[in-house]
Amino acid sequence: MTEENAFEWPITIYYEDTDVGGIVYHANYLKFFERARTELFRSRGVSLQALFADHVSFVVRHMDIDFHRGARLDEQLVVKTWPKNIRRASIEFCQVLVNNAGQALCKATVQVACIHPETMKPIQIPENIKSEISK
Amino acid sequence: MTEENAFEWPITIYYEDTDVGGIVYHANYLKFFERARTELFRSRGVSLQALFADHVSFVVRHMDIDFHRGARLDEQLVVKTWPKNIRRASIEFCQVLVNNAGQALCKATVQVACIHPETMKPIQIPENIKSEISK
Amino acid sequence: MTEENAFEWPITIYYEDTDVGGIVYHANYLKFFERARTELFRSRGVSLQALFADHVSFVVRHMDIDFHRGARLDEQLVVKTWPKNIRRASIEFCQVLVNNAGQALCKATVQVACIHPETMKPIQIPENIKSEISK
Amino acid sequence: MTEENAFEWPITIYYEDTDVGGIVYHANYLKFFERARTELFRSRGVSLQALFADHVSFVVRHMDIDFHRGARLDEQLVVKTWPKNIRRASIEFCQVLVNNAGQALCKATVQVACIHPETMKPIQIPENIKSEISK
Repeated sequence: MTEENAFEWPITIYYEDTDVGGIVYHANYLKFFERARTELFRSRGVSLQALFADHVSFVVRHMDIDFHRGARLDEQLVVKTWPKNIRRASIEFCQVLVNNAGQALCKATVQVACIHPETMKPIQIPENIKSEISK
Repeated sequence: MTEENAFEWPITIYYEDTDVGGIVYHANYLKFFERARTELFRSRGVSLQALFADHVSFVVRHMDIDFHRGARLDEQLVVKTWPKNIRRASIEFCQVLVNNAGQALCKATVQVACIHPETMKPIQIPENIKSEISK
Repeated sequence: MTEENAFEWPITIYYEDTDVGGIVYHANYLKFFERARTELFRSRGVSLQALFADHVSFVVRHMDIDFHRGARLDEQLVVKTWPKNIRRASIEFCQVLVNNAGQALCKATVQVACIHPETMKPIQIPENIKSEISK
Repeated sequence: MTEENAFEWPITIYYEDTDVGGIVYHANYLKFFERARTELFRSRGVSLQALFADHVSFVVRHMDIDFHRGARLDEQLVVKTWPKNIRRASIEFCQVLVNNAGQALCKATVQVACIHPETMKPIQIPENIKSEISK
């Protein structure tokens, strides 16, 4: 999976997402990116809830985010998501929020670590997930 | 529109919606209900953004909510929405969040007032909206 | 504890709390009310985290809320909280968000149930909590 | 202002901040950082609401964030904030969330741009703000 065949997930902007500045509150873009990663996993048959029951969880370790243009109420947008690096215990994703004119509103690289949910210690990413995400 | 032919809108539970108790944080059900009301309006050709530009806005004036069962991560739910009362300057909606076993997780009555967004004073609901919602 | 000697907790309105309508997003008032209930408990020596470790948790079962006036960015407000009814396995709180002119912006009655966090079943409220809250 | 005499703002972790993983939902750290920047401004006599009325607003343009350790319910933390670079139309802040053992839970550099709230175009930062922040 690369930018060309990135996973796409639609996002609609509701009142809850906006702030008094008239655009989406900046922290809320992180929610859109996480929904998209969750749905990428789901589209590959990976349920976060089932992983959790198996003592496998993912947490965000690092993000680098550019906020280019503010999204507005009622806008219908798309998050594009693809892996940049798949390592033993972490995955680095590229994610871009684009409008229907193809403009990037927000771009991020997100490093997600695989951990044991009780100990919070890094663990190896299950092989099936690595192969599904790298397809 | 009644409970039998209520407007239905799907909701998926993401990490952002949950809290340390393992279920959806109670205030977040209000977001699901508002998304559903927004989409009910949109399904009838009414854009909140366009209304806003016309100096027409809706605000929540009163809510009565029963929290019956907590929704969990990854659950796929449906919000059912229908009007209980349509008045001159306000609409009272009934809203229920149900799981795919038909169980009601959360039920609310929501009184939404039509206001002028600058003065915040009540104004008459535009006739086309009243007729669309009452259909 | 009654309305006259209610527990008071200050709230400041930040960007995160507002929406494009220029006032606080309605669901966020529920967060202010929960912060105030948490601090009421803390002021009486009750830690939610410690209770949780003892398999005692509180969940919101019912809310009735009136949204009177919208709070704005930078406003410094106070939540007043007092118990209306203390029952075997639930407490009903009254909560009011007031500005420094004494105006009520938002009023709620909130029924909070005591549950076992794993089974989610109602359990008896620990006696020390009942006596602390009723003081 | 440097790391040694950084502005400090206390943060308490409430239910609203956590997720099902048992720790603070990652996007919520951005809210804590923004509250701290707002209070840094306020401590220097700068009101965001008053600036807004003068057609001056600040938006986040870029963030680089490391999530080191998850904060938990009821934790009492401190955000340290200091400017790294003050430019003509933007300020770069360093921000660290620390616990009372002095451990850094989350670290960020945040580039905040000064804009006209209607046009969303960059404008020069008012001189009094530059001098207050650089003190």
